[in-house]
Amino acid sequence: MSESIIPQPYLLFLGDAPDALAAKVALGIKQWRPHLCVGQLSLPGCQADCGLPEMSLAEAWAAGARTLVIGVANRGGIIAPGWIALLKEALELGMDLAAGLHNRLSDVPELKETADRLGRALFDVRHPTRTFAVANGRKRAGKRLLPVGTDCSCGKMYTALALEKAMQERGMKATFRATGQTGILISGAGVSVDCVVSDFVSGAVEWLSPENDADHWDLIEGQGSLFHPSFAGVTTGLIHGAQPDALVLCHEPTRSHMRGLPEYAVPDLETCMAANLLTARLTNPAACFVGISVNTAKLAEAEALALLAEIEAKFGLPTVDPVRQGVDRIIDAL
Amino acid sequence: MSESIIPQPYLLFLGDAPDALAAKVALGIKQWRPHLCVGQLSLPGCQADCGLPEMSLAEAWAAGARTLVIGVANRGGIIAPGWIALLKEALELGMDLAAGLHNRLSDVPELKETADRLGRALFDVRHPTRTFAVANGRKRAGKRLLPVGTDCSCGKMYTALALEKAMQERGMKATFRATGQTGILISGAGVSVDCVVSDFVSGAVEWLSPENDADHWDLIEGQGSLFHPSFAGVTTGLIHGAQPDALVLCHEPTRSHMRGLPEYAVPDLETCMAANLLTARLTNPAACFVGISVNTAKLAEAEALALLAEIEAKFGLPTVDPVRQGVDRIIDAL
Repeated sequence: MSESIIPQPYLLFLGDAPDALAAKVALGIKQWRPHLCVGQLSLPGCQADCGLPEMSLAEAWAAGARTLVIGVANRGGIIAPGWIALLKEALELGMDLAAGLHNRLSDVPELKETADRLGRALFDVRHPTRTFAVANGRKRAGKRLLPVGTDCSCGKMYTALALEKAMQERGMKATFRATGQTGILISGAGVSVDCVVSDFVSGAVEWLSPENDADHWDLIEGQGSLFHPSFAGVTTGLIHGAQPDALVLCHEPTRSHMRGLPEYAVPDLETCMAANLLTARLTNPAACFVGISVNTAKLAEAEALALLAEIEAKFGLPTVDPVRQGVDRIIDAL
Repeated sequence: MSESIIPQPYLLFLGDAPDALAAKVALGIKQWRPHLCVGQLSLPGCQADCGLPEMSLAEAWAAGARTLVIGVANRGGIIAPGWIALLKEALELGMDLAAGLHNRLSDVPELKETADRLGRALFDVRHPTRTFAVANGRKRAGKRLLPVGTDCSCGKMYTALALEKAMQERGMKATFRATGQTGILISGAGVSVDCVVSDFVSGAVEWLSPENDADHWDLIEGQGSLFHPSFAGVTTGLIHGAQPDALVLCHEPTRSHMRGLPEYAVPDLETCMAANLLTARLTNPAACFVGISVNTAKLAEAEALALLAEIEAKFGLPTVDPVRQGVDRIIDAL
């Protein structure tokens, strides 16, 4: 596992999340790093629940919490004025703060002043705090797997995290490499590549996934889609920097159009795989698909299994829903 | 022509450029916008010459110069300490300053303080001064042409500027849209897309090339290459935001490998055209190649003409060296 730059363990702040989706960052951390979470803190009216003990700041501090993680996104992704007194109190108790919101913790004068005065850290993980070199395209030792998608938000991070967990359970050397804010808050490290200056995206990914043991796998979090007109440039830079040996295609079969763009159709799987191979093979001529990960949450069990079987028969690749079935069959085929 | 944000006309500062290449920004401005240049200012030892009258700052101000443009890049692309007194004097005389260097004029305390005090502007054109929306992928009225390259630095800006000039001479509505610092200093406006945060590259290009008359052509400056492992993400975002109706392939035939990366071969023209069409057709299904622009500067005339004829016969597209022959045959075929 890569070393966390965010002090652990965490108290997860759920705010007044109107539903579970609004608290998906907290839920993700609890799901993938339960041992790092000592408790949760909700405000009145909160409709999300991570199933952790509800704690005050003082109780969490006593229980060992070292960072209060803002695990909720309100409308606009901003730091709500009503949170500030509580966040300040956490700093005063001794905790650092971490958030993946658009607005920076460090742009809130009260928080910045308090953190500076007390020597606490504010982790605005969406915003890179370092610069990167331009990619050099040189081969690094170690193996790399990258999930790529027919669209945004179709299961790429989940697939990478599920692969990391299952590989580690088998005793394989495997590290999740976060490329977005939720992944960074889950794993405690990473680079939010869509916030990197465009010239340095591939270089940032080369930095994120450095040379490693020959039998070590980096599971690099994918971003966007080569077929999303808003974000395909980010995806391209990520693929080139990742130099993936193995690709996993991620797909959400009920989506009628690309996320946010009703006039753009979701590509068919063949077309999507061909484009991703063409792109990946520029920096790794041996890149190939090793599996297909389908998010069948919106389908009934029978329908889901039939679809997975159909896709598997068509492409001859292990095809799974990581939530329903896990990702073992993809690892078996590596 | 798009409206300049940089006050005109210019005095071109050549510094102590050791050769013409170091002053390519100044030479580009003189070549493409001679009517905007009142003179040049060289330091002792300068080996570059734009063929403009040599002027002191005071003479240039009297001749009407309103901006001193740093037209020279020294090693490292920084503002040399030895220039600062002169730059400050230009501000004091009444001129603004413009540069496309890595280091910002506004990061030099003496220049910032002087400019602020006197109400002068410092144009650091490499660094975007505004934010952009995420691309929406929607079709805009007007026509767009984008040069794309087998590699970086193979004639994309030159081709776009040559097309703008030739189209305007025919009375066509045509606007060069700069996407890099030299192009911005030449045209007085634009966005240096490789310095935009990756999520917003396509959105920046949509902003740069807005809706226009149905018979108006934007000549959008290309950047990088889909086959350059360091920069292909920038190129992809630029292509998607540009939504080009027409592509021109730019090629430098004597290059043995991708710029700066000896282990990466230059793609063949077919492969490069296929990849660019695939990418461009995501946001403009009607995108097609309308010509090929070959930089034959390193070939003898007979060899160059034979190569151009060979490429033209193979692809059935007007194939020109814009320096030797101009770009009229590409415009004829539009």
